[in-house]
Amino acid sequence: MSKTPRDHGGGVDAAAKKFGGDRSQWIDLSTGINPAPYPVGAIDPNAWTALPDSTAQSALTEAARRFWRIPEQAAVLATPGASAPIAMIPRLRPAGRVHIAAPTYNEHAAAFATTGWKIAPRLQDTDAQVIVHPNNPDGRLFTASDLHAPLRIIDESFADVIPDASLISQSTTPGTLVLKSFGKFWGLAGLRLGFVIGDPELVAQLATMLGPWPVAGPALQIGARALNDPAWADETRERLDQDTSRLDTLLTNAGAKPLGGTTLFRLYDVEDATAWQDRLAHHHIWSRVFPYNSRWLRLGLPAPEQWSRLEAALA
Amino acid sequence: MSKTPRDHGGGVDAAAKKFGGDRSQWIDLSTGINPAPYPVGAIDPNAWTALPDSTAQSALTEAARRFWRIPEQAAVLATPGASAPIAMIPRLRPAGRVHIAAPTYNEHAAAFATTGWKIAPRLQDTDAQVIVHPNNPDGRLFTASDLHAPLRIIDESFADVIPDASLISQSTTPGTLVLKSFGKFWGLAGLRLGFVIGDPELVAQLATMLGPWPVAGPALQIGARALNDPAWADETRERLDQDTSRLDTLLTNAGAKPLGGTTLFRLYDVEDATAWQDRLAHHHIWSRVFPYNSRWLRLGLPAPEQWSRLEAALA
Repeated sequence: MSKTPRDHGGGVDAAAKKFGGDRSQWIDLSTGINPAPYPVGAIDPNAWTALPDSTAQSALTEAARRFWRIPEQAAVLATPGASAPIAMIPRLRPAGRVHIAAPTYNEHAAAFATTGWKIAPRLQDTDAQVIVHPNNPDGRLFTASDLHAPLRIIDESFADVIPDASLISQSTTPGTLVLKSFGKFWGLAGLRLGFVIGDPELVAQLATMLGPWPVAGPALQIGARALNDPAWADETRERLDQDTSRLDTLLTNAGAKPLGGTTLFRLYDVEDATAWQDRLAHHHIWSRVFPYNSRWLRLGLPAPEQWSRLEAALA
Repeated sequence: MSKTPRDHGGGVDAAAKKFGGDRSQWIDLSTGINPAPYPVGAIDPNAWTALPDSTAQSALTEAARRFWRIPEQAAVLATPGASAPIAMIPRLRPAGRVHIAAPTYNEHAAAFATTGWKIAPRLQDTDAQVIVHPNNPDGRLFTASDLHAPLRIIDESFADVIPDASLISQSTTPGTLVLKSFGKFWGLAGLRLGFVIGDPELVAQLATMLGPWPVAGPALQIGARALNDPAWADETRERLDQDTSRLDTLLTNAGAKPLGGTTLFRLYDVEDATAWQDRLAHHHIWSRVFPYNSRWLRLGLPAPEQWSRLEAALA
């Protein structure tokens, strides 16, 4: 229903219509989602039927505090994905000027623009700023010294692959909100679970906008289980490291030049990104190109059983 | 995190702390949730892992259009429960005066008050109005002639037990929004699935506030399945009718007087509602009383295996 188009990737439906093949046979490498997701496991039947109570909500936020080492003074709110707070954050303050460290994925810009904010080309004297940390698509990292605006959004949707780089310690600075997502590192984008962490007054405002039971019972349960499982997280980071090396080697041998990214997605420099996208699409593999750079191709990591098809497509 | 207290029922956790017993052994009759929910069934693993695509979102809204016979001109948006749009609707227009047909559950009043609206005691000359149809707790029904304000909210969270009474035909009137919920009739409150139906401009505004993927993949799938299953709905209405008669007879024999409600919850007149609530609580059955009427006791329907305990408690 949204009026602002967002080039959020995905779009395998459209690709399948254009290039043929059944949607279920396509390999979607256009996102940055871990292809070996956290196992959903058994779900207590009550999680579907009962209104999520405060005990279940607290169990999740306490697990989040431990997993991300959230400072005690920062507030924590579970949300239906990270997209919901991204859409609502521009409503926390009167529309002003916001700086968004670019290039990055355009969900933040779209949300600010819809609510009357102006996107400022430079950080100086802005009312708000957004950093995606690490950045998508290039993997750029930031430090606390990059934060200046009165309202500062640190989108750590992709940060769980490099926990030591997290800027979570900044969540105690007034006006700061850190975003976390379950859709990427845990590979559970359909679960719709995210977190907003930081300034208690701003977090309370977001909670009021979302209403009293924003997150589904199964998401509370699965989320708590995953956040209480640091061993899975450690193993996953190692596997993603190895798969990233394998993907970079494969693409380098095919003539692309790795530019960076994270271990959830890789950015490559190629002669003609659209031609690469089409070539992969003829093998029913969907990749990501960017309207602002004709040489950039982004690939997510293939699932274990998908490597052979990607290798064949690039042979 | 919300600052406005809401007497939304539930609260079995608190009751178990006060009256003892393990929470899992309590019978919660304090809500109006169908105790024999729609069977969740198998869930496509992709529903957890993939970002819900437009095909899955469309399949759900098309099923909703058929099930509720939604006029073509009205827009339909799936939301994370009905609570999310309830919290956001007051932000659609500048704060003014709203009439909320009373007494009703206080989620609407809390949302309007939080955003600076004044609750008007009479409908005349208000900027907005809310009817809960059928009303909770007394089951009162409304007609189109009760609708006068420029912004009109018809909360049909409990209407699926009496589909012929639906005011869905009003969803084509500018300024009108009809709310639907999966938490009551289908008994899936933990799923967090609701709908907002009506004025395309207002629905688009709510969609923007919620962000692009407001509803979880499993909820899209289960919701579509349920809405494409009118036979289950028919059987459920019959069962709820029979259980309502059984509950009214039981309570009448125990000295309470049925005042109405719906076939999802029943309102009773008793000498001292708090004394009744305490009496049931000693049997670890949680019921609902109201701060504004000391004689009103509300009970949801017991699940099949719960009747004997309720009968024993009232013997």
